[in-house]
This record gives sequence, structure tokens and C-alpha cells, in this order.
Amino acid sequence: MSRASNKEQILEAGLRVVHEKGFGATSVRDIVQAAGVPNGSFTNHFATKEAFGLEILDRYFSNSREVIERTLLDGAKPPLARLREYIELHKGCVGAYDMRNGCLFGNFSAEVVESESIRLRLVEIFAQLRAALAYCLKAAVAAGDVRPDTDPDLVANVILSSLQGAILLSKAEHDVAPIEQFETLLFSMILIFPRKNGRD
Amino acid sequence: MSRASNKEQILEAGLRVVHEKGFGATSVRDIVQAAGVPNGSFTNHFATKEAFGLEILDRYFSNSREVIERTLLDGAKPPLARLREYIELHKGCVGAYDMRNGCLFGNFSAEVVESESIRLRLVEIFAQLRAALAYCLKAAVAAGDVRPDTDPDLVANVILSSLQGAILLSKAEHDVAPIEQFETLLFSMILIFPRKNGRD
Repeated sequence: MSRASNKEQILEAGLRVVHEKGFGATSVRDIVQAAGVPNGSFTNHFATKEAFGLEILDRYFSNSREVIERTLLDGAKPPLARLREYIELHKGCVGAYDMRNGCLFGNFSAEVVESESIRLRLVEIFAQLRAALAYCLKAAVAAGDVRPDTDPDLVANVILSSLQGAILLSKAEHDVAPIEQFETLLFSMILIFPRKNGRD
Repeated sequence: MSRASNKEQILEAGLRVVHEKGFGATSVRDIVQAAGVPNGSFTNHFATKEAFGLEILDRYFSNSREVIERTLLDGAKPPLARLREYIELHKGCVGAYDMRNGCLFGNFSAEVVESESIRLRLVEIFAQLRAALAYCLKAAVAAGDVRPDTDPDLVANVILSSLQGAILLSKAEHDVAPIEQFETLLFSMILIFPRKNGRD
């Protein structure tokens, strides 16, 4: 295999193993074994395990960005439908791994406490996720689909953190219920139509 | 030191180190060094690192139980005041460690994926936390302090997971804002007085 495809193999297999076992519990040996590349290959491509961690975060985030493009940022669909689709995709994704893997961003947040560069990358990623959620919620306010006094930035921030928490509990409990319950509450108590509210 | 006080030292110092560094990143050597006990001491008291993990979880949870008793379950105070106090305590607690430690339950949920006994203990702990939150919310519904159609169990489940997510992001971002934002949204959009709602 060429050096370039070795790197590709290491990132692909390494992301899979780290997502499953955690960053700390995954050794360089685990990564090269999963990738099926020679032992020395890892250090040819990554100066440190931290450098590898940053690259798998970026790889995982490039997938998140695609998801955001076709859900939260897709102006062709009604805003709340985009948001619901975004949450449904998380449910499907968490379910696909028997609820065992969780979200790589959340796992790194909990676990990787000794790398400041990884932490700062997470901060950037969360800022981009918040911005996409706020963009969608501003569209919902503008369309009159939610209470007019809804603060899009506040709700965006809380959706981001609450979804992380729901994914974390789904992982601990091997059950998708925490994500479903958050979705139910979000669309029945937070993002409500003004006229529904007026009926009370 | 007696064997009993060695065990106590290991649990106390070990909980502190694991809370700070994570379970996977903490070695038995780290634990005995932090505890200031002889190297062999750990295996005198714990058959495995997993057994030690279960004991520090219980120790951490006994503190949570005290917090719950004097907040969520304290019938002498109004229900929503108890809930707010419970959330405020999390904010103070996360802030006390420069937002770096997070919640041990959340950290274990993200990180400790290969121990089924630790996972099952987390499931039990989360069930008890949910029950205490639901107890408090039922009192709020009975007192007419929230919308009468508030589902206490649903809201309790979502508070538990959302608070975990907010603590996780506070940890990643070294900022207490995610917890504050969740608190603001909870008390302005979810747990609202019927009369406030009726004004819209």
C-alpha cells in the first residue's frame, strides 16, 4: 500500500476504534492492527497520538457538516422540519451502533482532559454546531412557527448541550429513549406555535 | 496506617484523581501515589480496578443523595425553589474545579464502555436521580406552580440528560454558561406558570 492509503486506512479504522473504545483506552497498536498496516506506519503519519486525535475529530466533523448542510441549513424545507430531521438522524446514528458509541465530540469532551489543542478544537466545533442550530431557529421565528419571544441563540445552545446529554445517557443505558424524550419535550413545550400556546 | 484507613485513603484520593483525569487515564500507580499508601495496598483492598471504580461511584453517589435530600426531596420548600437550588449546586460544583472535572457519572458514561457492571450501576444511579426529579416535579404540578399538562416523568428525564449535557459542555469549554443557559430555558419556557402562559 502507498503511504497515502496507509494514512487513510489509519484514520478510517482509527476513528472507528476510538469511537467504540474511547481515546484513552485505544493504543497505537490497536489502531494499526485495526487498520491492517505495519506497526511503524502510525509514526510516519502522526507525530503524536494527539495529532491523530485532532485529525479524527476533523474527519468526524466533516460528516457532521454534511448532515448540517442537508438538514439545519437547507432553506428549501420548513425550519422545524429541518431541526426534527437533524435530531432524528442522531437517533438513527446512535441506534446504528447499539447505542454503545455515543457522539465522538461528547466522548472527547468527557475524556480528553489533558490536551489543550483537542479541547480548543472541540470549542470551535461546538461553536459551529450552535451557529447552525441558531440559523435554523431564526428561520423558525421569522416564519412564525414558534412563539415570537423565542430566543434563537439561547434555544440553540440548549439544544446542543441537551442533545449531547441525551446521547450520553443513551450510551450508558443502551436505550434510545433519552433522545426520544428530549425530542418530545422540545417540540411540545419549547418550540410551540403561538396559537397552540394561546389555547391554554 | 491501618488497613481500613489505607482503604479510606485510596478511595478518597482515587476518586479525586479519577474525577480529574478520567478512569482510563488513571493508573493504579497514580492512585496509590495520590493516596500516599504502599504500592501493594491497592490489591489488598480491590480485586480489580473495576471493583475500585464501583466503590468510587458509590462514594460519589452518596454525596449526590445528600444533595437530593436537602433539595429535591425537601418538602419544607416550594418545589421549583428546590429544583433551582439543585441546579445551582451543580453550577457551583462544576465551577469549583474550574469547570474541568465534569460529573463523574457523565464521565464514566462516556468513557467506561467495557465494564458491564459499572454500566449497570450507572443505570441504577440515573434511575434514582430521575425518580427524585420526578418527585419534585409532581409536587410542582400538584401545587399549581407549572402548566397543568406538564408530564413530570418526561420533564424529569429530560432535566437529567440535559443537565448531564450542560455539565459536559461546561467541562469542554471551561465555562459555566451551558448550565446557566439550560437553567434559564428550563424556568422560562418549560416550567412556566399557567397564568404566564395564558398571557401570550
